[in-house]
Amino acid sequence: MSQAVTHLTAAAIQMVSGGDLSANLATARRLVRDAALAGAELVALPEYFYLMPEDETERVALAEPAGGGRFEAFLSELAREFGIWLLGGTIPTQSNEPGKMYNSSLLFGPDGICRQRYHKMHLFGFDNGVEHYQESATMSAGDLVASAYTPWGALRMSVCYDLRFPELYRQAPAPVLLTAPAAFTYATGEKHWELLLRARAVENLAFMIAPGQGGHHPGGRRTWGHSMIVDPWGDVLACHAEGEGMALAKLDLVYQAELRQRLPALQHRRLFNTDA
Amino acid sequence: MSQAVTHLTAAAIQMVSGGDLSANLATARRLVRDAALAGAELVALPEYFYLMPEDETERVALAEPAGGGRFEAFLSELAREFGIWLLGGTIPTQSNEPGKMYNSSLLFGPDGICRQRYHKMHLFGFDNGVEHYQESATMSAGDLVASAYTPWGALRMSVCYDLRFPELYRQAPAPVLLTAPAAFTYATGEKHWELLLRARAVENLAFMIAPGQGGHHPGGRRTWGHSMIVDPWGDVLACHAEGEGMALAKLDLVYQAELRQRLPALQHRRLFNTDA
Repeated sequence: MSQAVTHLTAAAIQMVSGGDLSANLATARRLVRDAALAGAELVALPEYFYLMPEDETERVALAEPAGGGRFEAFLSELAREFGIWLLGGTIPTQSNEPGKMYNSSLLFGPDGICRQRYHKMHLFGFDNGVEHYQESATMSAGDLVASAYTPWGALRMSVCYDLRFPELYRQAPAPVLLTAPAAFTYATGEKHWELLLRARAVENLAFMIAPGQGGHHPGGRRTWGHSMIVDPWGDVLACHAEGEGMALAKLDLVYQAELRQRLPALQHRRLFNTDA
Repeated sequence: MSQAVTHLTAAAIQMVSGGDLSANLATARRLVRDAALAGAELVALPEYFYLMPEDETERVALAEPAGGGRFEAFLSELAREFGIWLLGGTIPTQSNEPGKMYNSSLLFGPDGICRQRYHKMHLFGFDNGVEHYQESATMSAGDLVASAYTPWGALRMSVCYDLRFPELYRQAPAPVLLTAPAAFTYATGEKHWELLLRARAVENLAFMIAPGQGGHHPGGRRTWGHSMIVDPWGDVLACHAEGEGMALAKLDLVYQAELRQRLPALQHRRLFNTDA
C-alpha cells in the first residue's frame, strides 16, 4: 500500500428497482452521482439494479455479449463521468446455455475501463412452500473466483447467495475488500443478511461493501435492503435500512492493517492456505 | 437417520475453572451429573475445564499419552456412569515437540469408549499491546480434521479459535452437529463469539454446541462465557451468560432436515465440494 492510500470512501447504493428499465437506469445514474458528490471513490450498485420485473425470465432477453452492450456502456460511462470506481451491481450477460444468462458483476475504474468480471457462482434455490425460487432455471453458474486489483488492495467479488459460502472469500489472494451486491428476500434477509456480512468481514479481516435491493417490487416480491458497509472487526459503519438511498462510509485501511497485525488469523490458516 | 432418532437433548456446560485441579474435576463431575439428570444425552465440557492456572505453561506438565491417562479415564468413567455421550472439553495430551502439548478434544460414547480425538488445529496468537497470547509457545497444532459418528449424525470437532476458520467446518462429511469448547477472551468474545457461532451454524445448516469458560480466573484473566446452543437457522436455543452453569436445549433433527430441504445450500457448493 502506498503511503498516500490510507482511506477509502465507499458507497453502497440501495435501490427499489421495478419493471421499467429506463426509469431504473435513471435512478441508478442519479444515486451514483449523489454518491460521487458526497465524496465516494468506490460506488457499488445492487444486484439487478437495471430490472426487477414481475416475470424474472425477462432479464434473459436483455443478456449482452461478453464484449459489452448497453449495460456495460452505461456503467463505463458513469464511472468515467464521475471519475469513480464503480461496481455495476449485476447485469445480465450471455451464456452458452440456451435460455440462460450469467448474473454478472463488473468493476470499472475511473477511466471507464472494465477491470474485472465475475459471474455469480452459487445459484439460489429455495422452497418453503410459500416462497419459491430456482435461479438455475434461467441462469448459468459462473466457474471462476474473481479478484480485482484496486488502489486499496485486492477486492473479492461475490453476489447475494454467494454469502452463504465462506470458501469463496478464502481463496487467494486474501482480499482487503469484499463486495456483495444483493437482492436478498425479506424473510432470509431478516434472519441472515447482517450475520453473514459481519461474519465474512470478521473471518477475513476485510471490509464488506454490500448494496441491496430494499423494498416492494412487481410481482409481490419484497427485498430486505439494509445496504451495509462493515469493517474488518465486524462493526457496521453504515446501513441504509429501507427504500432508495445509500450507505456511505470512510474505510480506514490503517486500522485494518493494525487489526491484521494484532490478530494474524490470516497467517494462522491451516486448511487450503493457498497464501502460505 | 433411523425413525426413532428425531431429537437430541444437549448440554453445553460453563465453568469458571481455577488453579486447583481436584476442585475443577469435582465441579466438572457435578455439572455433568446435573446435565444428565436434566435429560441431556450429549454433554459438552468447556476448553481447559481441568485447569485455568495463573501460569499457562503448567498445563504442559499434565499432558498424558495418546493411549490415555488420568483425564481420559476421568471422562470415560463419567460418560459410562451417566450413560451419556460426553465431549471432554479439552485435555492436554503429549506431542513430540519438547515443552509442548496438544490441546485435545475427545468424544466418549455412553459405554465410556473414546470415539474420536481432535487436536486443536489453529493456535491463537493475539497482541493488542495490553493483552498478549501466543499458544504456539506451549502447544503443538493438530494436523487432522476430525469427525465423530453419533446416533444423530456426523459431528465436527473444533476448539475455540478454530471458530475463525470457516473452512474447518466445510470439510466432508458435512456435519450435522458442531462442537466448539472454548475459553474465549472477554474482549474478543464480546465482539465475535455469538457472531461466529451463529455464522458457522447457518452456513452449515448445523447445530452448534459451544461450552465456554465464563468468569474471572487466576492471573487476572477473564473469559467471555455465554455458553450457547444454536440451531441451523441461527437461532440461539439456550445461552448461559456468566459463571458456572449450563445451556440445555432439545435439538430438533427433523426441523434441521426440513431446513436443508427448503434451502439446499449444502448441495449448491461449487468450491471444494468434497461431498459431490
